Amino acid sequence: MTKKLTDDQRAEMLPPLKETGWSKADGRDAIKKTYEFRNFVEAFGFMSKAALWAEKMNHHPEWSNVYKTVEVTLTTHDADGVSELDIKLAKKMDALAQ
Amino acid sequence: MTKKLTDDQRAEMLPPLKETGWSKADGRDAIKKTYEFRNFVEAFGFMSKAALWAEKMNHHPEWSNVYKTVEVTLTTHDADGVSELDIKLAKKMDALAQ
Repeated sequence: MTKKLTDDQRAEMLPPLKETGWSKADGRDAIKKTYEFRNFVEAFGFMSKAALWAEKMNHHPEWSNVYKTVEVTLTTHDADGVSELDIKLAKKMDALAQ
Repeated sequence: MTKKLTDDQRAEMLPPLKETGWSKADGRDAIKKTYEFRNFVEAFGFMSKAALWAEKMNHHPEWSNVYKTVEVTLTTHDADGVSELDIKLAKKMDALAQ
């Protein structure tokens, strides 16, 4: 589960995430997305929900928040790159942001 | 309340914050601090408490979180620099982090 994605897995798993706004992070094997909400309460509400899931998955995002914007970067340190855990957390975050 | 601090106010208000780990941000009139917690739950617990206060004050931090680390930058956009609101939020965050 924490192995870096193979090329075949990338070809299968990354395009659907690109359609929802995820892209490759610069200079590292990671994926990133910027979420925009209506205000701080909605932005931090999203982060709170995502935090509970992240803790439950024992897989945590790198993220920043400025008022209604949340920037997320996902990678798996143990795998030294993007793993299935990142794909799973990315999809969960997309669902929580809706 | 949202006016940029005067030189006299800076001389009075900033040194006590420097003692608790706050410093000037690079290239802008802002203050920053890095908080380290024992784990993600404690780091995000701190953020949750600070978020409620920030919303109540209607003054929000710029912040990022990576596992047990929370980096905070405070400035007042309306004042184009550090105001009393930032001093107040900085002190509150220090109290919440304990």
